[in-house]
Amino acid sequence: MDEFALIRRHFAGLSGAGATGVRLGVGDDAAILVPPAGHELLMTSDTLVAGRHFPVDTAAFDIGWKALAVNLSDLAAMAAQPLWFLLALTLPSSDDESWLAGFADGLGRLARDSGIALVGGDTTRGPLSITITAVGSAPAGTALRRDGAQSGDVVCVTGTLGDAALGLGRLAAVATAAGAQTAADIAELRARLDRPTPRLAAGLALRGLASAAIDLSDGLAGDLGHVLAASRVGAAIDADALPMSDAFARQTEALERLALQAAGGDDYELCVCIPAARLQAAQIAVTAAGSQLTAIGVITAEPGLRWQRRGHPIEGPQHGYRHFEAAAAHG
Amino acid sequence: MDEFALIRRHFAGLSGAGATGVRLGVGDDAAILVPPAGHELLMTSDTLVAGRHFPVDTAAFDIGWKALAVNLSDLAAMAAQPLWFLLALTLPSSDDESWLAGFADGLGRLARDSGIALVGGDTTRGPLSITITAVGSAPAGTALRRDGAQSGDVVCVTGTLGDAALGLGRLAAVATAAGAQTAADIAELRARLDRPTPRLAAGLALRGLASAAIDLSDGLAGDLGHVLAASRVGAAIDADALPMSDAFARQTEALERLALQAAGGDDYELCVCIPAARLQAAQIAVTAAGSQLTAIGVITAEPGLRWQRRGHPIEGPQHGYRHFEAAAAHG
Repeated sequence: MDEFALIRRHFAGLSGAGATGVRLGVGDDAAILVPPAGHELLMTSDTLVAGRHFPVDTAAFDIGWKALAVNLSDLAAMAAQPLWFLLALTLPSSDDESWLAGFADGLGRLARDSGIALVGGDTTRGPLSITITAVGSAPAGTALRRDGAQSGDVVCVTGTLGDAALGLGRLAAVATAAGAQTAADIAELRARLDRPTPRLAAGLALRGLASAAIDLSDGLAGDLGHVLAASRVGAAIDADALPMSDAFARQTEALERLALQAAGGDDYELCVCIPAARLQAAQIAVTAAGSQLTAIGVITAEPGLRWQRRGHPIEGPQHGYRHFEAAAAHG
Repeated sequence: MDEFALIRRHFAGLSGAGATGVRLGVGDDAAILVPPAGHELLMTSDTLVAGRHFPVDTAAFDIGWKALAVNLSDLAAMAAQPLWFLLALTLPSSDDESWLAGFADGLGRLARDSGIALVGGDTTRGPLSITITAVGSAPAGTALRRDGAQSGDVVCVTGTLGDAALGLGRLAAVATAAGAQTAADIAELRARLDRPTPRLAAGLALRGLASAAIDLSDGLAGDLGHVLAASRVGAAIDADALPMSDAFARQTEALERLALQAAGGDDYELCVCIPAARLQAAQIAVTAAGSQLTAIGVITAEPGLRWQRRGHPIEGPQHGYRHFEAAAAHG
C-alpha cells in the first residue's frame, strides 16, 4: 500500500468535509480555509515522540487520542474554539494496518467530540513521532494569555493533579501484585496518563473571567512559573489545597504528593488566575462546563513561587519536567 | 541549557514581532493571529526526517533552509502569500550549539527572504526530525488547486527538472575524481538538492492565469498524476521538452534523463496547467517573477499520462518517489 492509499483509507473519515470554514481539506498542496469574521486565530504545534511522551507499550488508540489532546489542551488554555488540525505522522512501517486503524480511531474519537476537522498533513517513514498543529478561534481580544495575572488574583486549577505522573511511575512496580481496589485505581490513573481530557469547555467558560491561563503539561510548578514570569508577579500556593483524585489519595503517602502534583507533568488541566470578585462566577461557570475549579493560592506582587502549608512556608518544586534536562526518556 | 532557553537563544530573531497579523507570537500556549480580511488561509505541514529527506551529512544551515522551503513550495503552488509558520523540532541532543545556530541561520535566511514569521512550535528530544506548518493567504477564490485542469490546457513547469535527483545520486560516485567543470556542476546540483528555491513569486504571478497547479516534490510523473486524477483528465507530455540545467545536460547521457527528470523528486518547481490563450501572458508574468515557464505538453480528455518523443509514443515513468514504497532511505 502506498502512502497516499494509506492516508485515504484511515483518515478519510476525519477530513473536514462540510466542517466550519473548510473550503478544501486533505488532498491538495495546502488546505483552503475561511477564518471566522471578527475572530482571531489561535495556533499551536505539539510533538509526541515514542518512549519520551508516551510509554512504548501505549495502545495505538491512546497515542492517537493523546497526540490531539495535548494540542487541544493548548487551545483550551487560550479559551479558543477548535476549528482545524493538520497531522504530521512519522511511522516506522506501514505494514501494521491494525495499529493505524487504532491510531485513527483514537484520534477520530477525540476530533469528533471536540468538533475539530482534519484538513491536511504529511505521512512519512521513520521513528514513530506525531506532530499535530491545531487551529482555533476566539472573538478578537478574548483569548486568555499568560501575561495578564495581577497581584491579588486567585490561582485556580481545574480537575485533579498528579494522577498521570502517578500512573506512569507506579505501573511497573505494582500492577502484577495488585488487589481489586488497587488494580482499579491503577487503571484510572493510567487512563489519565493515556487519554487526557482537554478542558475545552472550561476554557471557553472562563472567557471574560480569568486574567491569565496556561495548560498544565510539564507540572504546576514549571507552568505556573511561566505565568508568573510573563506577568511579572509571584505566587503563594497552598500545597494542601492541590486537588487530588480518590485513586491518587488512596495510592500515595502524604509526603510524596507534592512532587507528583507540582512537578510530575502530563496533567492537562488548566491553571488560571482570577480576580477575587469573579471567583464564584468562574467556579459556577466551570462546574456547568463539566469540570471543577479549585482555588490553590494567590498572586503576589513579590516575584517567585512560594509554597505553604497551613500558612507556613515550606520547600517545594520550582520547576516542571523539562525534555532537554531529563536524563532518561519520560516513560 | 533547558529547552526554553534553547528556543529563546536561537529562534528569537525569527519570531514575528511586528509581522503582519501577529498579535502574540512565540511564548504562550498558542499564537494569536489576525487573518487578513477577505482572504482565505492556506495551510500545509511537511516533515523532514534525517537520512530520508536529506542525506545525514547535510549541513545544519541547509536542513533549516529546506525544512521551510518544502512548505513554502506548497504555498507557492496554491498562489498564496506566506504569513506565519510553526516549527516542531525533534533533536537528538541539545549539546551541539553550533548545529542549532546553523539550523536557525538557514531557516531564518529563507524566512526573512520570504516574509514569513515564526509564531510558535515545539522542541523535544528524539531522532532528528523537523515538521513545519506554514500558513499563507490569498484573496477568496484565487488559490490555485489541483482539480481545475481542462482538456486543451498547456502543461508547463517552472525552472529545470532533475537537478536535485542527479545531485543526490551521483555525488558519492563522482565527487572524488572530478575535474573542475564536473566539480562545479556537482556543487550546483547539490545546492539544488540542499537549498531548493520555493517559487513563491512565480505562484503569485500565475494567479488568475493558471487553471491548476502543484509543486514538484516527488517527481513530475507522480505529481502531475495527482493533477490528472483530481481534474479527471489525462496528459500527453513531450520527454524532449523537459527543461534541464546546463550542469544537468553536461553530466547526463540522453537515455538516463527522463527517469531523473520525471521520477527523481526534490525539484520543488511548479507544474501548472494554463489555457492556451493565456500561455504567453503567463510566461511573461513568470519571467518577470524571476523564473521561467516551459511548455512540456497538453491536457487531454483521455485519462492517463502518456509520454512522447517527436510526436511518437514512448514508455515513461508513471509514478514519483513514494516514501512508503521505497525499500531504502532516500539518501
